[in-house]
Amino acid sequence: MDDRIREHALTLVAWSARIEAGDDVVLEVGEGAHELGVAVAEQLGERSANLLATYRSPELQRAYLRAHDGEFDAAPGYELALYEQADSVLILKGSRNTAGSADVDGETRRAHSTARQAIREARLDADWVSTQHPTRAMAQQAGMATEAYRDFVYDATLRDWEALAEEQAQLKDILDGGDTVRIRSSGTDLTLDISGRTAVNSAASVAYDSHNLPSGEVFTAPVDTAGVVTFDVPMTIQGRRVRDVELTFKDGVVVDFAAEQGAAVIEEILETDGGSRRLGELGIGMNRGVDRITDNILFDEKMGGTVHLALGRAYDACLPDGEPGNDSAVHEDLITTMGEGSSLEVDGDVIQADGRFRWE
Amino acid sequence: MDDRIREHALTLVAWSARIEAGDDVVLEVGEGAHELGVAVAEQLGERSANLLATYRSPELQRAYLRAHDGEFDAAPGYELALYEQADSVLILKGSRNTAGSADVDGETRRAHSTARQAIREARLDADWVSTQHPTRAMAQQAGMATEAYRDFVYDATLRDWEALAEEQAQLKDILDGGDTVRIRSSGTDLTLDISGRTAVNSAASVAYDSHNLPSGEVFTAPVDTAGVVTFDVPMTIQGRRVRDVELTFKDGVVVDFAAEQGAAVIEEILETDGGSRRLGELGIGMNRGVDRITDNILFDEKMGGTVHLALGRAYDACLPDGEPGNDSAVHEDLITTMGEGSSLEVDGDVIQADGRFRWE
Repeated sequence: MDDRIREHALTLVAWSARIEAGDDVVLEVGEGAHELGVAVAEQLGERSANLLATYRSPELQRAYLRAHDGEFDAAPGYELALYEQADSVLILKGSRNTAGSADVDGETRRAHSTARQAIREARLDADWVSTQHPTRAMAQQAGMATEAYRDFVYDATLRDWEALAEEQAQLKDILDGGDTVRIRSSGTDLTLDISGRTAVNSAASVAYDSHNLPSGEVFTAPVDTAGVVTFDVPMTIQGRRVRDVELTFKDGVVVDFAAEQGAAVIEEILETDGGSRRLGELGIGMNRGVDRITDNILFDEKMGGTVHLALGRAYDACLPDGEPGNDSAVHEDLITTMGEGSSLEVDGDVIQADGRFRWE
Repeated sequence: MDDRIREHALTLVAWSARIEAGDDVVLEVGEGAHELGVAVAEQLGERSANLLATYRSPELQRAYLRAHDGEFDAAPGYELALYEQADSVLILKGSRNTAGSADVDGETRRAHSTARQAIREARLDADWVSTQHPTRAMAQQAGMATEAYRDFVYDATLRDWEALAEEQAQLKDILDGGDTVRIRSSGTDLTLDISGRTAVNSAASVAYDSHNLPSGEVFTAPVDTAGVVTFDVPMTIQGRRVRDVELTFKDGVVVDFAAEQGAAVIEEILETDGGSRRLGELGIGMNRGVDRITDNILFDEKMGGTVHLALGRAYDACLPDGEPGNDSAVHEDLITTMGEGSSLEVDGDVIQADGRFRWE
């Protein structure tokens, strides 16, 4: 076994999920994530945690959903009981074909997802962490050779998280104390009101309210937005390519949009509901281990020298107690690169210029 | 996908497990049983049953057990809740290496098993069925080419189960009405008292109290045993080869034993506890789709023209209400071939001669 798989497992169990003796752990093993599953099982054994392995298989899921009549039972009790009583849920993604369930129709998918709402909430209430094993399919999606992709994933994942958490704490302090963020870059001049909101130091650990490994970003929830932003990072959204999306905001709402490619999917997102034309998140990527875009949001949005904005739902952690943030059925991240000539200011102070933070 | 995989899934879900709409099904997918898992998921979707897939991985299990200090929590609540609330448990075996957890020490294995007693019972209380996908590793254990092994498995599994259930009902009636079974074959002359006991028509369906697919046997629990039996079918027990075991019974108890190979493992079994020197089962194989021995008890003991006897625990289904049968921590099947010159008599009537039933 590649030593880095063991290190990945150790990082997941010790740093990210903070597993302790006696914890009831659900380990969700993706079709292509078997090796990482073995390494995580070893870590759980070493800590005397309890292990129940579930099988995360898009191919099983596809076969099940396509055969089903679409009238799903609401949150089956046996599965709800499992997650309600679990302490931790570790999700090991690892697709063998990223289009493996492409022919399941959207209506069935939504009906299934809606029926499982209570299970999803029970999972979110546990200490959950999602990570990804570098499979050939994911390498292919990134347009990379498998070995090179493995290097990429481990460079992004096996960071000195403690040091990054400290670095990110600086930015969190600035955002928590600030009222206005201004982002200027090619095709972008956007002003966001973040007054009264709390930033999350997303350092890839449940101890930091952070549930992705890798992570490496600081994010908050804007109150108001004005101006124009161009997202120059190409993405795949719902299986469709999207490139150079431009959004114009007035009083917090998208009043105009355009896209070089994929305008239809952006329009669908914007028209989902009342909250989908507003921003739920401003995220600032700080993971310097992510050195390229791989068409995978788990990595792309964490890239140092990028900023992402999400249309739709805001995270509770960013909101004052009891205050509702932007609500929506969607949370769709879009990313822009902070290149030469770009700047990120908080209350007029330049925090980042040309994509480098002032402390870098 | 091989059509026979779909047929296997249909047999499992419809005939064996009798899955209905709304059933809460745990689908335990073995490392090498992914394809069968996909086909079963499709069947569950078609029936609007609920699906939760767990991952049955000897490699994860090995890593976990070897790293653990051996002090296991008793029946972790989250897993117990899952199985207590499940309606059905479908176990898809499919090893990729039959020696995949050979280096886990026996003490750890036993401690883990003991700690999970309540979970095991909850699983047995559900409508459980165990079946096997034909993997390369299982073919290798059988000493067969993979394609030939697939043919073997599907010949044994895709039977006309309804017809076999009817044929087996004849034997069940004879055994239920009979008091004494006499088995004569090369090296064997054994008399078993079965008075008052009930035979199980094991027709590969929970509707017949039968939990293996394939099945194809009728079995009961002897009250008393006398004489000599030689088990000429070679087996692997706890990783060790066993051949030509000879047991001598007096007043129901093994008073002498010998073996061409593996005497030590037989001795260990006999010395387990008070019940391990007595028989818990007399089983008569009736599956003519099993045409050879493949060193896999799931198939071997069902072979038409064989008889098996188990040292140890008797099944409740064979006992009169409230009457305790033979009790033991073990249940170890041993098999003998009913060849030329053999006979199986019930109360003096010849039921089978030269390995053929009188109705065949």
